Amino acid sequence: MARATDEPTAAAPAEDLEDLALRDDYALNPAFVEMVVDAADRGDTVRLHELIDALHPADIADLMGFLSANYREVIVPLLSADDLGEVLSELDGAIREEILELIDAARLAQALGEMDSDDAADVVDDLEEDKKGEVLAAMSDIDRASIETALAYDDETAGRLMQREVLAAPQFWTVGQTMDHVREAGVDLPELFFDVYVVDPANKPLGAATVSRLLKTRLDAPLSEIMEPVIEIPVDMDQEEVAYIFDKYHLISAPVVEPGGRLVGQITVDDIVAVIQEESQEDMLALAGVSDPGRGASIMEITRSRFWWLLINLGTAILASGVIALYQGSIAKLAALAVLNPIAASMGGNAGTQTLTVAVRALATKELNAANMLVTVWREIAVGLLNGVAFFIVIGLITFFWFHDPAMAVVAGLAMIINLLAAAVAGIFLPLALDRLGFDPAASSVVFLTTVTDCVGYFSFLGLATVIILR
Amino acid sequence: MARATDEPTAAAPAEDLEDLALRDDYALNPAFVEMVVDAADRGDTVRLHELIDALHPADIADLMGFLSANYREVIVPLLSADDLGEVLSELDGAIREEILELIDAARLAQALGEMDSDDAADVVDDLEEDKKGEVLAAMSDIDRASIETALAYDDETAGRLMQREVLAAPQFWTVGQTMDHVREAGVDLPELFFDVYVVDPANKPLGAATVSRLLKTRLDAPLSEIMEPVIEIPVDMDQEEVAYIFDKYHLISAPVVEPGGRLVGQITVDDIVAVIQEESQEDMLALAGVSDPGRGASIMEITRSRFWWLLINLGTAILASGVIALYQGSIAKLAALAVLNPIAASMGGNAGTQTLTVAVRALATKELNAANMLVTVWREIAVGLLNGVAFFIVIGLITFFWFHDPAMAVVAGLAMIINLLAAAVAGIFLPLALDRLGFDPAASSVVFLTTVTDCVGYFSFLGLATVIILR
Repeated sequence: MARATDEPTAAAPAEDLEDLALRDDYALNPAFVEMVVDAADRGDTVRLHELIDALHPADIADLMGFLSANYREVIVPLLSADDLGEVLSELDGAIREEILELIDAARLAQALGEMDSDDAADVVDDLEEDKKGEVLAAMSDIDRASIETALAYDDETAGRLMQREVLAAPQFWTVGQTMDHVREAGVDLPELFFDVYVVDPANKPLGAATVSRLLKTRLDAPLSEIMEPVIEIPVDMDQEEVAYIFDKYHLISAPVVEPGGRLVGQITVDDIVAVIQEESQEDMLALAGVSDPGRGASIMEITRSRFWWLLINLGTAILASGVIALYQGSIAKLAALAVLNPIAASMGGNAGTQTLTVAVRALATKELNAANMLVTVWREIAVGLLNGVAFFIVIGLITFFWFHDPAMAVVAGLAMIINLLAAAVAGIFLPLALDRLGFDPAASSVVFLTTVTDCVGYFSFLGLATVIILR
Repeated sequence: MARATDEPTAAAPAEDLEDLALRDDYALNPAFVEMVVDAADRGDTVRLHELIDALHPADIADLMGFLSANYREVIVPLLSADDLGEVLSELDGAIREEILELIDAARLAQALGEMDSDDAADVVDDLEEDKKGEVLAAMSDIDRASIETALAYDDETAGRLMQREVLAAPQFWTVGQTMDHVREAGVDLPELFFDVYVVDPANKPLGAATVSRLLKTRLDAPLSEIMEPVIEIPVDMDQEEVAYIFDKYHLISAPVVEPGGRLVGQITVDDIVAVIQEESQEDMLALAGVSDPGRGASIMEITRSRFWWLLINLGTAILASGVIALYQGSIAKLAALAVLNPIAASMGGNAGTQTLTVAVRALATKELNAANMLVTVWREIAVGLLNGVAFFIVIGLITFFWFHDPAMAVVAGLAMIINLLAAAVAGIFLPLALDRLGFDPAASSVVFLTTVTDCVGYFSFLGLATVIILR
């Protein structure tokens, strides 16, 4: 019976499945994931093939993220070498490592052969040492050589991002000669290219002509006439720097050069889009004190990855409690102090996070440097002071109407000014200092910041209360 | 005398100035900014021209950000119409508005004529109503029409991002015919193009051939043979969706279509890089409760933009203080409670922010949806519980050695478990709920989250202490 009701669905044309696979926003449709799970549960390989064939490799990678490990085990063997390569380059982290373990060396070598050298190197880098050897041995000499060359560069550098295949031409070539060359060279050229790099006899870039320009120009014009200056990317440049340059100058592709200046590859903007996503997510997660162990990480791995940040925070919370302990006597005399005590600290933490986040962002986009540091610092302090005064009034009035005690209102207000000022100072100086010392300003500033704002908040409120109210 | 010492510097070749302008990381050199300021102070227009000529328009835009308003007033009149247009399209916010006020309608119309229609429309949109009319009147009919068409689309949609110039060809054309057409049409085509869109007689896209593919293929091959399927972008799609599609499928360009399916323009990846930067920064700033008023905003504008978020936070802080007020009697009996009280609340805030940030990120990248929602919720709650147990032990031991009171240690530990669990639940459900209700999950989740973690933290610690220690 189950079979009979399934048949009409199975017979639906592929076009329908493609429509069903994605929602209007191009995210994978949960109903489609359900269909894959059902087919896998029934062991219906024909149906699974149909479903997977309806997906772009990027969507197969997404599907892997939504499935649990036992379903991934069923899907992976069904993928073609071509799809497998593309799926592997879309995935990362725990899921990729797990899938790599499911594939034998020969099949993996074949899939890697279908990938761009930069993506293939990334995958090989994820393999365990002995499997890495096996896989490389199973590859063709050319594929192995290009992967080994890529792996010789550090992770997250231009050398790793680049593809070695480029379209380069001497400057005396004409547009027509260049086009003839491209038509003949065909497969040896990169699959996609956007610029012809014009090089000297030592293979050093002299300039570049966009392919659009090439197509628009008369065939007898020499390349030297249409080329424009290029920005050369050193092979050891950090990928974050490369992304900054691409973003700033709106580059589509850029030549990568060795220390001697020789052209060794190119980076294209599609690789950069991924880098920008990665780097900005890293900053966002770092500010929250999470290093994302990625999808597919186990509960224990996630717990452990968050534990350390929380432990550091516990240390700072206890330090702040130590400040309160200094005034335990004052609180024993007037328990109302304990009620209002957290307010200035909490406001300082929030105001400081505002300043800090703006500063971290401005440092990442290089909008903040020595040229405008003083102005920025002064601006943040002025903003802190102004909001301090504003909230002096707000909290003062609230406290007065709550406790009917003018002295308490003044103390709450003064603590607010002091802590919003401290928050501004800490919020701007901490990321600047971390950056200057060569640390990632996003990484640990928040924990330092809240230490400052909690301690100053408690100290100023309880200290002033002790002096003004309880004297 | 001043003149004499200036001359050697002024005579330095342009090449040297270009080297000096940028640091190794391609950020503007503070020393160079200093040189611009010096030249402006001396009123040395010749030198200013030299300095500005050494900069790429993107760097001139950067320079504007580092200078104060009175220096910008000196620089803007020195820019060529071409540079001015590019500088305006790089800038945004307060600085751009300020610069626009410095330029008369005729000069602005000329600069806008040099820009891509999408960038020009953006600038015109920033103008005040009466100046907008003046500027549009001063433009050529063609330029005005293209800007008015762009402005007819909503801000932050595909229609605004796209450029109207595209390279389209009927499917029966051969590669050779297409290339001849490009060479003849020349200036009417977009400055940069990466795909030839193959269209039917009604101008609906049938597919696309990359320019690389065009160059590699024999001249007599019909386009229909080398074209591949395209993803069509509806003209009213939100730019964040467009960026998601470009990132997911590694697109370089995509055709934009009207509701009827007719091709009306194209979006290229360089526009998307800017969108991705913008959107991820928006999320990061929203989590910290800052809406960046941009560089060049006045101190009063910044103070005001941050005030409202802080006021909301004050409301939640007072709410949490209300919870403490419920237990004022307990604190009066045992002031030590006030010392330990903030710890569980602070830990909950941090743990909740971790969960929340991971969830906001996963929602933005569409890694979290109905298909894996239950798994994700369960995972976060399990992580919260496990870390709760871990910190039950840690804080229990610390409290025991600090206060030599086993009951106090148990209370501190239990409050920790309860609040880390509450933090996990709030941290995962708040962004999911905001997203489901159609709000930006990054925007206000933190304020709700800390309300929950503060109130639960204080309530569980003081409540348990009252029941267990003071009963």
